[in-house]
Amino acid sequence: MSEKISIIEGGVTAPKGYKAAATAAGIKYEGRTDMACVYSEVPAECAGTFTSNVVKAACVKWDMKITESGDKLQAVIVNSGIANACTGQEGFDACKATAEAAAEYMNVSAGSVAVASTGVIGMQLPVDKLVNGVKALSLKLDGSIEAGTEASKAIMTTDTVNKEIAVSFSIGDTTVTLGGMSKGSGMIHPNMCTMLGFLTTDAAISKEMLTKAIKSVVCDTFNMITVDGDTSTNDTLLIMANGMAGNKEIICEDSDYEVFYEALFYVCRFLARKMAGDGEGATALFEAKVINASSLEDARLMARSVVGSNLSKAAIYGHDANFGRFLCAMGYSGATFQEEDVELYFESTNGKLKVFDHGVPLAFDEEVATSILSAPEVTILINMNEGKATATAWGCDLTHKYVDINADYRS
Amino acid sequence: MSEKISIIEGGVTAPKGYKAAATAAGIKYEGRTDMACVYSEVPAECAGTFTSNVVKAACVKWDMKITESGDKLQAVIVNSGIANACTGQEGFDACKATAEAAAEYMNVSAGSVAVASTGVIGMQLPVDKLVNGVKALSLKLDGSIEAGTEASKAIMTTDTVNKEIAVSFSIGDTTVTLGGMSKGSGMIHPNMCTMLGFLTTDAAISKEMLTKAIKSVVCDTFNMITVDGDTSTNDTLLIMANGMAGNKEIICEDSDYEVFYEALFYVCRFLARKMAGDGEGATALFEAKVINASSLEDARLMARSVVGSNLSKAAIYGHDANFGRFLCAMGYSGATFQEEDVELYFESTNGKLKVFDHGVPLAFDEEVATSILSAPEVTILINMNEGKATATAWGCDLTHKYVDINADYRS
Repeated sequence: MSEKISIIEGGVTAPKGYKAAATAAGIKYEGRTDMACVYSEVPAECAGTFTSNVVKAACVKWDMKITESGDKLQAVIVNSGIANACTGQEGFDACKATAEAAAEYMNVSAGSVAVASTGVIGMQLPVDKLVNGVKALSLKLDGSIEAGTEASKAIMTTDTVNKEIAVSFSIGDTTVTLGGMSKGSGMIHPNMCTMLGFLTTDAAISKEMLTKAIKSVVCDTFNMITVDGDTSTNDTLLIMANGMAGNKEIICEDSDYEVFYEALFYVCRFLARKMAGDGEGATALFEAKVINASSLEDARLMARSVVGSNLSKAAIYGHDANFGRFLCAMGYSGATFQEEDVELYFESTNGKLKVFDHGVPLAFDEEVATSILSAPEVTILINMNEGKATATAWGCDLTHKYVDINADYRS
Repeated sequence: MSEKISIIEGGVTAPKGYKAAATAAGIKYEGRTDMACVYSEVPAECAGTFTSNVVKAACVKWDMKITESGDKLQAVIVNSGIANACTGQEGFDACKATAEAAAEYMNVSAGSVAVASTGVIGMQLPVDKLVNGVKALSLKLDGSIEAGTEASKAIMTTDTVNKEIAVSFSIGDTTVTLGGMSKGSGMIHPNMCTMLGFLTTDAAISKEMLTKAIKSVVCDTFNMITVDGDTSTNDTLLIMANGMAGNKEIICEDSDYEVFYEALFYVCRFLARKMAGDGEGATALFEAKVINASSLEDARLMARSVVGSNLSKAAIYGHDANFGRFLCAMGYSGATFQEEDVELYFESTNGKLKVFDHGVPLAFDEEVATSILSAPEVTILINMNEGKATATAWGCDLTHKYVDINADYRS
């Protein structure tokens, strides 16, 4: 990250004019918050990216309509516990009831309310609890850092930590802030999008530039993580830009856009990595970095394939230097390459070790390899020696706990 | 299966003129056999399909040369424990040494010897042990049923049961026999082929028809199974046809070809299902049957995606009626469909239950669902109500034992 961008305290409430709230609506979980709201004092430009799954949750369809129209966004209502996917007309009616409740209690237009859900698929939302939840949220909306943090906790499902970040940077002489939160731990294999992610900024930026930036940034951030290869029905990334920082509006790809883009990339990368490292049952963040590939597309395919392979993930869990599995996963990724060109390294805070050199396995010290692979963040560095393209993907190890969590998720 | 085809005792040695042997060559495993040979008394027409992985084991490259040439095949030498993949020139030299040893000890041409390996990637084969193993095999070659069974056991890695079958059928007035064995339990996600499978027949059939039949049959058998989504570097399916049954040679797609095809399909389907059910750590065979889809390609994509989903597999392990995961997996399979058309059922020897009907989740008895999902073979039946295409895919559940096996596979 360049010196232009500073990490600051907080998340979605860090930029000017945003409030957040969390409440325990009792939708599915007991003894914890399960609804959140992110609210802008003024209607904000918005953009979003959504799941590529053919089966889209009702709330995804609702939000796509809003972001694809010219409408501005003023509030986002999120619930955890039930995904509102595969729920037919009743599911869509639940979105409508939520937005209408927000319109009533928060004094905004129903068309400026996005909704998002995460949890069990194929279960209906209890509309009365949802509506009561929206009312409770409206009474608790607050611009404090703590309110943003509470919102980031309410949207968690099997996540073990909440995920939020905020950065500030200058556009001209004006200080601009960008904040974000996300959740996601299982059914994580974003495709053109992520699980739930909500970003707020007080930057003044046109819808066109905002859309361009978010769609580009996800390719190398949220779209490069995987926990289990399952692309969710609910993946949603929304960004609101309310312009309250007062900067000269960003309307083209100038140097102001560049710094905004850099800040956005940093925030998305941070949240994406944090989701991968907090994958269901994970004990390690598993990074695959492909360098000197012949094309960007091939580099991405290989990096994603390595971190997505069950066998590679199980080897990381066992701290087992079974590098052949990484080569195998590169081989079926869809990328083309010559194995005779490939060099492969293990790398972590515990050291760096070359294990494969131009098509030939190297003799290496197993203890050194095990030590490197035992760190909480492990990188497989793959030098293709074929071109100049680079891509990095993030995942996590495959553990007994992943099986525990998912063998009986609904109960 | 039609009445024309009878299941008989045995495996690769059931057809006329085939011998087999197994030996403990000490390549990696101790206290068990780890090399096998399948041998035909006369050179046989051959065909094969191989992994689509860009990274191909040395032995795969060796066998592709043989099957793509007009050469006949007389012996196949297989070792388990080391895959001979990512091994450079030294790996290819090991194939050559194996074939030359077989040529010497079995009095065949080196060009008629196929080799196959399965096990750890990126490790060199000990050539002296291999050559000694070939010599030992040559002394034990035997046409008995037991010898075939011993061979099917020697090629196992993490498999818990050996997999073999034989069938007989008539071509004209002649009785023809087809036998086969296969292995595979992890790194199973065949793409245009399978793990290791070896088929023998005494049918007289042209190379062209044999190739056509095997390439077609794999699409709905071995290519429709998955254990972990990892397409191996070593997938190999070889068939030998030595003509010793004495039938009128099959040279075109006539009724004789049809009965041969049916027998071949039955054998491959049997072995494929058995591999899926014996997936690493599996407690259940997990079948997804898609009916009335708009195209065969879509039906295959959806069936494969459902049995390949980690979340679906974990739900099967937990006997958890979390049907939304199956719909989610269909949604990201690449197939296109309307969720409003879909009906979804759970089915096993314990009963049948509809859980999703034309886009709407149904209320169902959880105990009934759990009972159905607790059977050793569980089917998810998916009626697309959109067309006439049907496809079935097989996998297994994702269990703690899978993680155990793969966290430290090499030691």
